[in-house]
Amino acid sequence: MGGNTIGECLKLTTFGESHGKSIGGIIDGCPAGLKVDFLKIQQNLDLRKPGQSALTSQRKELDEVEFLSGIFDGITLGTPISFQIQNTDSKSKDYDHIKDSYRPSHADFVYQEKYGYRDYRGGGRASARETSCRVVAGSIAAQFLEQIGISIYSFVQAVGEVSLDLPYQQLDLTQIFENTVRCPDAQIAEKMIDLINKIKKEGDSIGGVIQTVVKGCPPGIGEPVFDKLHADLAKAMLSINAVKGFEYGSGFNAAKMRGSDHNDTFVVENNRIRTKTNWSGGIQGGISNGEDIYFKVAFKPVATIMQDQESVTSAAEKTVIKGKGRHDPCVVPRAVPIVSAMAALTIFDHLLRNKTAKLDNI
Amino acid sequence: MGGNTIGECLKLTTFGESHGKSIGGIIDGCPAGLKVDFLKIQQNLDLRKPGQSALTSQRKELDEVEFLSGIFDGITLGTPISFQIQNTDSKSKDYDHIKDSYRPSHADFVYQEKYGYRDYRGGGRASARETSCRVVAGSIAAQFLEQIGISIYSFVQAVGEVSLDLPYQQLDLTQIFENTVRCPDAQIAEKMIDLINKIKKEGDSIGGVIQTVVKGCPPGIGEPVFDKLHADLAKAMLSINAVKGFEYGSGFNAAKMRGSDHNDTFVVENNRIRTKTNWSGGIQGGISNGEDIYFKVAFKPVATIMQDQESVTSAAEKTVIKGKGRHDPCVVPRAVPIVSAMAALTIFDHLLRNKTAKLDNI
Amino acid sequence: MGGNTIGECLKLTTFGESHGKSIGGIIDGCPAGLKVDFLKIQQNLDLRKPGQSALTSQRKELDEVEFLSGIFDGITLGTPISFQIQNTDSKSKDYDHIKDSYRPSHADFVYQEKYGYRDYRGGGRASARETSCRVVAGSIAAQFLEQIGISIYSFVQAVGEVSLDLPYQQLDLTQIFENTVRCPDAQIAEKMIDLINKIKKEGDSIGGVIQTVVKGCPPGIGEPVFDKLHADLAKAMLSINAVKGFEYGSGFNAAKMRGSDHNDTFVVENNRIRTKTNWSGGIQGGISNGEDIYFKVAFKPVATIMQDQESVTSAAEKTVIKGKGRHDPCVVPRAVPIVSAMAALTIFDHLLRNKTAKLDNI
Amino acid sequence: MGGNTIGECLKLTTFGESHGKSIGGIIDGCPAGLKVDFLKIQQNLDLRKPGQSALTSQRKELDEVEFLSGIFDGITLGTPISFQIQNTDSKSKDYDHIKDSYRPSHADFVYQEKYGYRDYRGGGRASARETSCRVVAGSIAAQFLEQIGISIYSFVQAVGEVSLDLPYQQLDLTQIFENTVRCPDAQIAEKMIDLINKIKKEGDSIGGVIQTVVKGCPPGIGEPVFDKLHADLAKAMLSINAVKGFEYGSGFNAAKMRGSDHNDTFVVENNRIRTKTNWSGGIQGGISNGEDIYFKVAFKPVATIMQDQESVTSAAEKTVIKGKGRHDPCVVPRAVPIVSAMAALTIFDHLLRNKTAKLDNI
Repeated sequence: MGGNTIGECLKLTTFGESHGKSIGGIIDGCPAGLKVDFLKIQQNLDLRKPGQSALTSQRKELDEVEFLSGIFDGITLGTPISFQIQNTDSKSKDYDHIKDSYRPSHADFVYQEKYGYRDYRGGGRASARETSCRVVAGSIAAQFLEQIGISIYSFVQAVGEVSLDLPYQQLDLTQIFENTVRCPDAQIAEKMIDLINKIKKEGDSIGGVIQTVVKGCPPGIGEPVFDKLHADLAKAMLSINAVKGFEYGSGFNAAKMRGSDHNDTFVVENNRIRTKTNWSGGIQGGISNGEDIYFKVAFKPVATIMQDQESVTSAAEKTVIKGKGRHDPCVVPRAVPIVSAMAALTIFDHLLRNKTAKLDNI
Repeated sequence: MGGNTIGECLKLTTFGESHGKSIGGIIDGCPAGLKVDFLKIQQNLDLRKPGQSALTSQRKELDEVEFLSGIFDGITLGTPISFQIQNTDSKSKDYDHIKDSYRPSHADFVYQEKYGYRDYRGGGRASARETSCRVVAGSIAAQFLEQIGISIYSFVQAVGEVSLDLPYQQLDLTQIFENTVRCPDAQIAEKMIDLINKIKKEGDSIGGVIQTVVKGCPPGIGEPVFDKLHADLAKAMLSINAVKGFEYGSGFNAAKMRGSDHNDTFVVENNRIRTKTNWSGGIQGGISNGEDIYFKVAFKPVATIMQDQESVTSAAEKTVIKGKGRHDPCVVPRAVPIVSAMAALTIFDHLLRNKTAKLDNI
Repeated sequence: MGGNTIGECLKLTTFGESHGKSIGGIIDGCPAGLKVDFLKIQQNLDLRKPGQSALTSQRKELDEVEFLSGIFDGITLGTPISFQIQNTDSKSKDYDHIKDSYRPSHADFVYQEKYGYRDYRGGGRASARETSCRVVAGSIAAQFLEQIGISIYSFVQAVGEVSLDLPYQQLDLTQIFENTVRCPDAQIAEKMIDLINKIKKEGDSIGGVIQTVVKGCPPGIGEPVFDKLHADLAKAMLSINAVKGFEYGSGFNAAKMRGSDHNDTFVVENNRIRTKTNWSGGIQGGISNGEDIYFKVAFKPVATIMQDQESVTSAAEKTVIKGKGRHDPCVVPRAVPIVSAMAALTIFDHLLRNKTAKLDNI
Repeated sequence: MGGNTIGECLKLTTFGESHGKSIGGIIDGCPAGLKVDFLKIQQNLDLRKPGQSALTSQRKELDEVEFLSGIFDGITLGTPISFQIQNTDSKSKDYDHIKDSYRPSHADFVYQEKYGYRDYRGGGRASARETSCRVVAGSIAAQFLEQIGISIYSFVQAVGEVSLDLPYQQLDLTQIFENTVRCPDAQIAEKMIDLINKIKKEGDSIGGVIQTVVKGCPPGIGEPVFDKLHADLAKAMLSINAVKGFEYGSGFNAAKMRGSDHNDTFVVENNRIRTKTNWSGGIQGGISNGEDIYFKVAFKPVATIMQDQESVTSAAEKTVIKGKGRHDPCVVPRAVPIVSAMAALTIFDHLLRNKTAKLDNI
C-alpha cells in the first residue's frame, strides 16, 4: 500500500534510494501565491548535509535541490511542487560487502523480509538520506509559517549523558547555530562536542535528544479525536530515522505529577485568555491553545559503527560486518533541521485543515 | 476536515459526545469471515468502564455495546461494522457550572476557540468516554490477531513515583488483571493502589505509565518511510486522552547509549534469523522484525480534581471551578484496555496493508 | 479495505444492511455553526421513501432519521454527525427463497464471490435502502449550499422512450415535485406515469434518466488533475445503485461536435466574465467557471421484476427466481433526491477543499 | 488540498506544467518483484505522443521517460517508483499572446480564478501533456495485469458522426493499431481518417468516443458502496482531459430498456457461473462478476482551433485569440493509450484492495 505520503491538506510524498539516480518528492496542496526563498531552502539543506563539520560524516553530498514544477516566477502555483536532489557522491562499492548480509540494527533484514527484494547500496530506501526531501518541503512550509508569525526552534538538548537541563525559556534560542552541535548553551555545547569526538575516535556512536519549541501558533489547530495535533507531531517525529521516543509538554514526567500541580490555570493577560503554567505544552485535547508548543525527540545511536560486528547472511550463516564507510558518530546535530521540517509540515497541514472548522470562515 | 478516522486498510471512525444520545463507531475494511466473540468485547469494555473498583470513578455507565450492521449470524460480512453505546447515567446538570467557564487543562477553551460552539456537558466530544468505541473496535481486531498467534499485553508500569522496573521478560503477564490497578507484580500493585487511594482522599489526581508487549507479530509489518509501524503506534497512543509521551524499545534511554551496546546482533535460532538483544523493540526501519514489540505510554494526571481551582469564563472574567462530579484519581488502570485496543487496531491495519507488499502474495 | 466513505474534507461513511437493525452514517468534517433544519431532511427522505405514490414500491418504511451526535441545540458542533434509520418493515421471510440463489442482475453472486459470506435478506448491503443515508447527509450539505446561494435541481428527464427534450433553461424547475414522477413538464410527466403504470401491470421494470442543474456555484471549485469537479460528480453518481452512465455539459453529444461550435466564447456581462454558451456544463479543466453546472445520470431498469426468471443456485444448479416482494417498476422518481444529495455532498466537499487553494484565504 | 493523486492501494501522484522543467510522477504501493519491461512503457508513450502521424499535432516531444527510483536491476522494490519526462520542444513564445487572455473552453480562466496565479505557457498544469505520466504508470500496471491474464483493449469507436456500431465481440481487437486512427475496422478507420483530415484543413477540431474492453478480470473486484469498480473507472476516465461522459455495459441505452430484457440470466458454463447476456458490463453491485468489463468514454472536440476566436482578457476587455500553435484536430487517436492506462491503474488498484476482503486470504 505504500506509506510514503504524510499530511492531509498539505501532502508530501517522497521517493528515492540513497544510491539511485536521485531522491526527491512532490508537495501537493501547497496554496498558490507563496513567494519561495530558494536560498533559505538550500541553507536548511546545508544544515542537514554530511561533511559540514568535523562532527559529521565526511561524505560529500552536494544536496542541491532542483525544482521541477509548481513554482513559476518564484511563486507557488497551487499545483504540485516537485523537486529532486541528485545522488552524486554515492560510493556503491562501499556496500558490496553487505549485499548478502544484514547489518545489526539496520533495516536490511526487514526490507528483505517484507519485499523479497532490496537495494542494498547505502541502505536504499531506508537511508536517512531520504530526510533531505523532508527538509526541502519543511522549509517551504516554514516560510509560510513565518509570514503569519510562527517560528520553530529545534536544538540538541542531550548527547549521551551530557544534557541541557534548563527550561527552554531560559535559553537564547538565537544561539543554536553558533556551534556545530546545535546547542544554544555554549558551555554544554562544548561538552557535547568533546563527547562526540571521543566517541568518534573509538569508532562508536552515541544517541541524543532534540527539543523543539514552536512560538506563535494560534489557538484552534488540531483535529480530534485521532488527528490531535500532538498525535500527528508524534507520528511525524517517529517517522524520522533513528527516533525512539516523543514527549510533549510535561511528557513522561507528567506520570509522576499530581493534577493540582499539573493543571494549567487559565488567566487573562492583555485581554487574551492564557495559561499561567504550560505543562500542556501548548496543546489541550489535541488542539493548540495559543501557548508555546514544545516537545522532545529521542534518537538512538547510529547503527553503523567503525567496529567489526557479528551478524548473519541472508542465507542464515554467520558473518562479520566490517566497520567501514563514512558515517556520523551522532545523528542529532544534523537531525535538527529535519525535526524542524517535520514540525513545520505538520503545523502547516493542520493550519490548512483548520480553515474549514467553522462555518464563519467559509 | 474532521479527524475522527484512524487506519488505512482497517478504518475506525468514531462519533459521540459524552452526554449525547449515544457514542459509537464504524469499522470499515474488516475482512469477511471473522467469527465475533461478543462476550470478549463486553469483557474488555467492562475493564474500561467506570465504577468497576474503588480506584475508579463511581459513574454507573453500563457501556453495553449494540452492533447495528456488518455482522450476520455472528460472522463479519466484510461490510461496515457499526455499533453504539447508549449514554445512560449522564448527569448533565453536574456540568451547568462550567457552561461558560473553562476548566484548567481540559479541552473546553480550545473547542470553543476552534469551533465557536461546544457541548459543554461532560466534556462533550473531548470526553474520554469516546475511548469505549476504541475498545470495541480493538477487541474485534485482537480477536483476529489471536487467531494468527499475536497476543497483546498492556499493564500499569508506573503510578506517580511507584514504578515496576523489572524488564517485562521477568514478569508474569498472566497476572495483570489479578488486581484492580492492572500491574502484574502483586507487591508493587499494592503500593500503587495505596498511592491512588491516598491521592483520592486528597481530592487530587496522579499520572502513570502503561507498558505494552506484543508477542508473535511476524516480520514485515510497517510501511516506511512515513507509515512506519512505530510511527503509527505513536500516533495511535498519543490520540488517547491524557497521553503525553510514547517510546518504544530502548526509548528515551537510547539517547544515552552507544551504538556498540545498542545494536541488536543478528543470530540464527532454530533456523530463524533473530536478534540477540532487542533494543529495537521489535521494529527496525519501521518494519517489524519478528521479535517482541514493546513500548511505553505516559499519562498525565486527570485534569478534574476535587479541589476548587481558579480559572476564567468565556467572557474572560475570573471564576472558580468547583471540584465536583465523579472522576478517576488516576486514569491508567482503566486505560489498559484502551492502549491494547489501539495497539490491536494499528497492528491489524498494518497486517492488512502488508498483504500487497510482494507480487508473490497477489 | 472497505469503500464506504466518500469525500475528502467532508466525509460521509455509511453503514447498514437492509434487514439489519438500522442503517446510518457518520458525517465527519462538517463545519461548526450550521443551524440544521430537521424538517427539510425528513422531507427529502420522504421524497425517497417507498410507498409514497402508486408509482413506487408499497413497502412501508418509516425512514425516520435519528441524530446521535454532532448537533447541539440544533447547531452543528464541528464534531462527527452520526445518524441512524431503524429498519422496521423488513419482511425478511420474503427473501428465504433467495438464500441460496442468485437473482439476475443483482449483487448476490458478486458479494458471495468477494466476501464468502452475505446477508441475503433484501439485498443486504447492496440494497438501495442504503441511499437513504446519502439523502440525510446530502440534505445537510444542501442547507449550507443554500445559505451561500447554491441551488440544486434534479428531475426525471426520461423514462424509457418518453423523454423531456427541451433545454433545462426552458423548463420551470419549481414544478418538479408537482407530480409523482418528478418531471417539470406536466404533459410529459403524464406520459411517463402512464408508461410506468403499464410496465408495472406487466410485472416488468423500466430505466430512466435524471438531469441535474446546479445554479449559483462560484468559480474555482474542483481539484485537478484527478479530483476534477466533474470526475468527482461522476464517481458520486455512478456510486448510486442502478446507475449506468454520466455525462455533463455537452456530454456524449460532444463527440459529434466541432470545436468551432463547441467552444464557449468568453464575454463580459455586468462586469463579470461569463461564457456566451455553456457546452462546458459550468466546468472547465475540472474547475467550476461560475456558469450553471448540469449533467445527466442514466439508470437501468430495476432488476427485481414480478416475473419468474431462470437462474442458478450457489451450488451452481439451475433454479427459478419467483417474482415476488414489493418493488419499484421504475427507480428514477425516487432517485431524484438521491442524485441531488450526492451532488450537494460533492459540491460542499469541493467548496471546503477550495478554501486552501490561495494563500490570500489563509 | 491538491487533487493530484489517484488510487488507494496503488497511488499515482503526478506533477508538472507543460512548459516547466519536466513532468512526472510517483507510483506508491506497487508490489515488489515485478519485472519491468521498459520497452513496452516507451511503446505506449509513443502511441500517445504528438507527431506520430499526419492526424496528430506536429509538436516533436521526445517523451522519453527516465526512472529515478523504486526499480533495481529491472525489478520493482516495493518502494516509490518515481519517473520524469523532460520538456524539450516547448515553444513557450507561442503562448505569449495568451498571457493575459482566456482561450475559449480552456482552463486559463478557471485556474486564474482558483489560484490567482497561473503558468500560461502551453496550458501549464491543465495541458494534456500531463497524461503522459498516466501512460507510464498505467503501462506498469498493465504489465502486472497481463501476468494474471487480464488484457485491456481500447479503440476509437467514433469520430464525429462516423462510428463503429458493431458489438465489440464482432471486432478483431488485434487490428486496433493497424491504422493511425486506432479503429479495429479498416473501412470505418478510413472514413474516420478522412473526416479528421477534412476537419484539420478547415482549421477546426472534432470530438470522438473511445470504447474499452477488459478481458480476464476475476470476479470480486470493487469496493461498495462508494468505491464501486465502475464508479472508480468513471472518475478515472472523467479525470482525463476533454472527457465529457462515461457509460458502462448497457450505459445510457439502459434507460430505455425493460428489466425483462436487461437482466443478465445466470447460467453454468464449464462449471463456472456466468451470465448469458452481459448488459451489466461485467460489474454488478459495483463488483466484477468475471464477464468482460466494457465501457465508453466521450471526448469533446479539442478547444484549440486554427481559427480566430473572440474572447476576453484578464482585465475583462474584449480580445481575439489567434489560431496558432501545433494542435490535434481530434484527440481520440492519441487518447487510446491514456484510457487503457487509467483502466489498468484502476483495476490494479482494486485487485490489490480486494486482497483483504476475506479472512481466508490473510
